[in-house]
Amino acid sequence: MLPAELIKKKRNGEGLTAEEIEFFILSYTKNEIPEYQMSALLMAIYFKGMTNSETVALTKTMLHSGVVVDTSRIDGFKVDKHSTGGVGDKTSLILGPIVAAAGVYVPMISGRGLGHTGGTLDKLESIPGFNTQLSLEKFVDLTKKIGTCFIGQTKEICPADKKIYALRDVTATVESLPLICASIMSKKMAEGIDGLVLDVKFGSGAFMKNIDKARELAMALMNIAKSYDKRVLALLSSMEQPLGRYSGNALEIFECVEIMENKTHFSQAGRDLYADTRELSLQLSAHMIHLAGKTSNFEDAYGLAEKILKSGAALKKFEEMCVEQSGRLHELKMPEQKVELIATTNGFLANFDVEKIGLAGIILRAGRKKTDDIIHPTSGVEFHAQLGDAIKAGDLIYTIHGDEPERFAGAYEMLSKSFHISLQKPHEHVLIKEVLR
Amino acid sequence: MLPAELIKKKRNGEGLTAEEIEFFILSYTKNEIPEYQMSALLMAIYFKGMTNSETVALTKTMLHSGVVVDTSRIDGFKVDKHSTGGVGDKTSLILGPIVAAAGVYVPMISGRGLGHTGGTLDKLESIPGFNTQLSLEKFVDLTKKIGTCFIGQTKEICPADKKIYALRDVTATVESLPLICASIMSKKMAEGIDGLVLDVKFGSGAFMKNIDKARELAMALMNIAKSYDKRVLALLSSMEQPLGRYSGNALEIFECVEIMENKTHFSQAGRDLYADTRELSLQLSAHMIHLAGKTSNFEDAYGLAEKILKSGAALKKFEEMCVEQSGRLHELKMPEQKVELIATTNGFLANFDVEKIGLAGIILRAGRKKTDDIIHPTSGVEFHAQLGDAIKAGDLIYTIHGDEPERFAGAYEMLSKSFHISLQKPHEHVLIKEVLR
Repeated sequence: MLPAELIKKKRNGEGLTAEEIEFFILSYTKNEIPEYQMSALLMAIYFKGMTNSETVALTKTMLHSGVVVDTSRIDGFKVDKHSTGGVGDKTSLILGPIVAAAGVYVPMISGRGLGHTGGTLDKLESIPGFNTQLSLEKFVDLTKKIGTCFIGQTKEICPADKKIYALRDVTATVESLPLICASIMSKKMAEGIDGLVLDVKFGSGAFMKNIDKARELAMALMNIAKSYDKRVLALLSSMEQPLGRYSGNALEIFECVEIMENKTHFSQAGRDLYADTRELSLQLSAHMIHLAGKTSNFEDAYGLAEKILKSGAALKKFEEMCVEQSGRLHELKMPEQKVELIATTNGFLANFDVEKIGLAGIILRAGRKKTDDIIHPTSGVEFHAQLGDAIKAGDLIYTIHGDEPERFAGAYEMLSKSFHISLQKPHEHVLIKEVLR
Repeated sequence: MLPAELIKKKRNGEGLTAEEIEFFILSYTKNEIPEYQMSALLMAIYFKGMTNSETVALTKTMLHSGVVVDTSRIDGFKVDKHSTGGVGDKTSLILGPIVAAAGVYVPMISGRGLGHTGGTLDKLESIPGFNTQLSLEKFVDLTKKIGTCFIGQTKEICPADKKIYALRDVTATVESLPLICASIMSKKMAEGIDGLVLDVKFGSGAFMKNIDKARELAMALMNIAKSYDKRVLALLSSMEQPLGRYSGNALEIFECVEIMENKTHFSQAGRDLYADTRELSLQLSAHMIHLAGKTSNFEDAYGLAEKILKSGAALKKFEEMCVEQSGRLHELKMPEQKVELIATTNGFLANFDVEKIGLAGIILRAGRKKTDDIIHPTSGVEFHAQLGDAIKAGDLIYTIHGDEPERFAGAYEMLSKSFHISLQKPHEHVLIKEVLR
């Protein structure tokens, strides 16, 4: 097999066989195919796509370039959740403890924030001492002991994906559906799980700006999971507004703890700003619990999740996990400086450009532009208003929080362009639009 | 300027500015942009194309990555011909001497054969001792002295093109109109010429399989030449059948000498098999002479070219060039072994798959699959029949010539699939379809 011939085949829109995909990817991983041929293939895939069976073959090759976590010591159903990324999405930190408290194991290998979207690892690392760089052995031990554990990708997991992702990042080939699917699913299939719940976001803060594209992504991801005989379902959830009260790493940990402490926080318009984070976490938890076969229907699973949250058992699991992963939750440092952004006109909050909110986060160093940028854990944005709220001039829209006030002006400018107040009342915002199986 | 951002811009179908193109190409030439980013850009260009002004900017950058031959010492009009490649196309070797004999200078920097198409340098190098690797200084000296000189590309000429072409060859990005145009024209503009005649081929043996695509290529090439204020025109000529009597290196030199000696060679169907080579050479010569302003109309230029050919002056120029470039024309070695391929049915020769004839040439080592393949100068194919000929079973179609008979069977099999005999008489074959200005 000649690499140039395989590139040409894909470039001409022909399918590659599983053997051809395996040959190309593994040869590249072993440095036997140069980067310039890999990047040409990636760009050809960007333009010509991949069939379902090609995407499955790509996932399989990337998965088997490394190890699959051996979770056979854990006697019970193992389930994970994957979100395609958004702003203020901190549900993993709540649902992991809830599902674990329900007796279902949640071994979570998470990522870092990049671009306008946040990452679970960054959030956890805002807890002083919290260690996400555990060995796979320790990861399985803790999952067995606590019920859930959060670590970062290790070098044994999908080395092909790591090498390919680094190349995609510098060759404008990130935004390709099959490449995204294979990258996500190879890492998820490496976790040694039995089931997976996908939270596929749509809207201005999501990778997929409209729900049809999100559905397409969800179907492609589920197709791969099914080829591995995993139980899988997908929620299509809105990223038309940031999720919950805060975005920013320590601020999101604070919000999660508040929710697990059964607190509420009402806005000027009388909304509980914790409601969306709580609701999405409960919905996702319930699907995970039901997928594991713990209840005979979804409603019972939702009831169980709610009960666990209310009882304080989720918080207890979360605190236990912090202790086992060396995190000192009570030392969580909160930001000390702030600037408020207020409305200058009357009307209804008609829409957000959520990506701009994420970009303001990058300016504040709550997020990353490049993979080696350093996160500033205390900075972030607080959201006081939600879609459909009646707004009067002078009402609070955002508070910028942090300890680097020299960055506030840039974030303020970006945030001031991130919402629109209209005289017409918008349609009611729906958090979860569809459940796909 | 970030390379990844420029790749993304092109990937999204946006145009690049002249500054962006120059930055990317020159940085790549200086090894400041890695090959994997260049190949991703090339593949994006393959899919998204380039506007006329982008192609002109790319040509300019590649041209100025090296030197332009200083032909100012030559007092007179300098003109070249470029063909987009075919099978049996040996017109350069006849038109160079004709045009030089008419008092117009023809400084020709030629290429080697690759894939199914032949190359002028390989043909000349089948003449024992013929040296195509002269310095640019010597090249200008000989052009001034003889009127024409043929050399290969030197390292001073368009180094960016050389580096990019090598990458295109292994990343399936050769077949891109703007990349082809910039590669051809940067090298032609480096010759220090005043005018250029393009022979753009169409048909089964050409890069462009149909005339509309060939016209598009011709227009794009002419557009670049015009941006340099060069006089330019293009012929669209047929590669629906191989040109003349032979393809193969020494065999083509033999054919050229025969034509310049005013010989004819009649086929079983009563056709002069030298007619097409002679006619296309005369047409191209006449356009070059007329472009140089030597005659007031094309007809006079054609008459002059014909007179020069008949007088033996072209042969004299060719022999002079061989002597000056150390070639011993009288020692030209001809093949000693052959195999004939005959028709097995009656009918009319309805069509050729000329590319297959070229591929048979690769099997015989008359051509190259890869740039470092070694050419066997004596091997090749003789054509006994032309489109529209009435064929009887037993009539000769091809003779395979060479000195490596172990290769004949493979070539025979390929050639047996390269023509079609039909009961219906095809339309008459037209050699030159259009002249574009």
